[in-house]
Amino acid sequence: MKTLQSDGLQYKDGQLLILDQTRLPNEEIWLNCQSLEEMYQAIFQLCVRGAPLIGVAASMFIGKYAMEQQSKEKLMHAIDYLISSRPTAVNLQLLLDQHRDILTQSDSFNAHLELAIKHFEEDVTLCENMATHGAGIIRDGDTILTHCNAGSLATVGIGTAVGVIKKAAQTKKDIHVFVDETRPLLQGARLTTWELNRANVPYQLICDNMAAFLMQQRKVDVILVGADRICRNGDFANKIGTYGLAVLAKHHDVPFYAVAPYTTIDFECEQGSEIPIEQRAAEEVRGIKFKGEPLCWSMQNAEVYNPAFDVTPAELVTGYILDTGINTASQLSQLKLDKN
Amino acid sequence: MKTLQSDGLQYKDGQLLILDQTRLPNEEIWLNCQSLEEMYQAIFQLCVRGAPLIGVAASMFIGKYAMEQQSKEKLMHAIDYLISSRPTAVNLQLLLDQHRDILTQSDSFNAHLELAIKHFEEDVTLCENMATHGAGIIRDGDTILTHCNAGSLATVGIGTAVGVIKKAAQTKKDIHVFVDETRPLLQGARLTTWELNRANVPYQLICDNMAAFLMQQRKVDVILVGADRICRNGDFANKIGTYGLAVLAKHHDVPFYAVAPYTTIDFECEQGSEIPIEQRAAEEVRGIKFKGEPLCWSMQNAEVYNPAFDVTPAELVTGYILDTGINTASQLSQLKLDKN
Repeated sequence: MKTLQSDGLQYKDGQLLILDQTRLPNEEIWLNCQSLEEMYQAIFQLCVRGAPLIGVAASMFIGKYAMEQQSKEKLMHAIDYLISSRPTAVNLQLLLDQHRDILTQSDSFNAHLELAIKHFEEDVTLCENMATHGAGIIRDGDTILTHCNAGSLATVGIGTAVGVIKKAAQTKKDIHVFVDETRPLLQGARLTTWELNRANVPYQLICDNMAAFLMQQRKVDVILVGADRICRNGDFANKIGTYGLAVLAKHHDVPFYAVAPYTTIDFECEQGSEIPIEQRAAEEVRGIKFKGEPLCWSMQNAEVYNPAFDVTPAELVTGYILDTGINTASQLSQLKLDKN
Repeated sequence: MKTLQSDGLQYKDGQLLILDQTRLPNEEIWLNCQSLEEMYQAIFQLCVRGAPLIGVAASMFIGKYAMEQQSKEKLMHAIDYLISSRPTAVNLQLLLDQHRDILTQSDSFNAHLELAIKHFEEDVTLCENMATHGAGIIRDGDTILTHCNAGSLATVGIGTAVGVIKKAAQTKKDIHVFVDETRPLLQGARLTTWELNRANVPYQLICDNMAAFLMQQRKVDVILVGADRICRNGDFANKIGTYGLAVLAKHHDVPFYAVAPYTTIDFECEQGSEIPIEQRAAEEVRGIKFKGEPLCWSMQNAEVYNPAFDVTPAELVTGYILDTGINTASQLSQLKLDKN
């Protein structure tokens, strides 16, 4: 039986294991996602996160589930239910829609596992290709700012934005990285520093509100971020805080790139205003979860506004580093024509 | 014997009590600052913070210390030592320099306590005046964004930026406030929400990286922040993250005001590049102090960059709400001439 392994996901002996990213870097706990509800909660609770990784993990679950359930109704329900777990990222929907297509066209339950394995292996290749294209724009001595985690914990490969950084660090001299901590869930502080440390890439962690000061001092040469959904016109959704960085980049004349595989492009979505923005629980902003326990540093009943994502308009984006190459916003819709 | 009391400071029976703001809002612990070292640490550890409050607290300490020590050498040392506790804010230096002047001109130890009491009472009046001027620019229904804490926990009066907000909430209809949590020390999340809640002003707490998204959606009508030092040309230092807000305000055409008493203007400082920016410990960014205990959510040895302040250039500032009225940058140097 096939074994697949990435930094955040394992498929082994018919079991789907997911690294609980909410516990990193303090603890490495692998969750065995046996039931549909366990898989849904693993996504909803952000144990597994990062648009490409969520897509592959959900696809792997459907592949595994198809082998166990052998019921089209149950599978269709599982697909719909998992798609509802996170509304902003598009990869999840795109990959699961491919399972839906199989379900309507074929009686083979085995085909779902084959498709999931294909999704896994394809993501590894997509990451490699993005990293290679992206590293081409990084120069010796560049300092790169990144937000959230768009690395090997957000994909099953080397990563998107962090994949480019790792590749650049291997091929260029004196690469330095500033990592936004990325409140409220601290994916930068907890995950990206963990990845860069393991890859021996020099970095400094900053609070999100320090990025502007760095740019003012000309300490940032380029900004690389991931994307959860890219529209046909180039507007894209990503972790909250991305839009602010793009505005700051424009003001300081710092190149700003989104790094994503083609699975992140939603050709049905004309522009950013059509992307649903997930609002999350007030507890996330009132404090943090630490070693699994909620911890509140503001007032217990503090009123909160907590959008999980924002949308960056295409005019603030220097380019899109895709697996197929680096594109401008106007080139994105052309890609659609090529694919048809 | 005179009794003085504010939200964060008490002078009573010859004792100087300081509310430990690092423990708010969970615990209200008052520190009795008896020794010089206790006073220094109270400032350095941010138990007492906010440029005007630091200045008054240090002045009160010198007043009290003069009564106890009756030694010019000890007093001079205490003044120098306390000025070194926080290099960015100017109020501390300005008020303690007035004690230094007394020391060289007079043998009266009593005069230091009188000066300190004058500083306390003057700060209350300055806050009232700023609040009255500032409330004049707020309209019914306005939504105000503020950063850090520039309230009654940053002064001995109603506050600077938050003083304006409180006054506006009393005199205008439907005022709403967005409060930046203000990493790394969370003064917004811990202190400003506590103050607004006590004053019954409706607010929502956000992470610092959400402010841009709010402005993009036209949900912010005006931004009010405090200041730690205002230069002659209008450049001003304030809590890290202020500069980024100013750039975002410019991009979204949102009015951006600094609110401060005249004691915050450093007429000796021509421009922002002359302001020393305090760098603080890596632990602050790697996690938080919670109920007095350090708590690290990133890697224990994560590399960190941690500037405590940034400098906002005058060209991004709509106006300066001072105790004397609302001024543009070009009017600031004129103030100096008036004072001479």
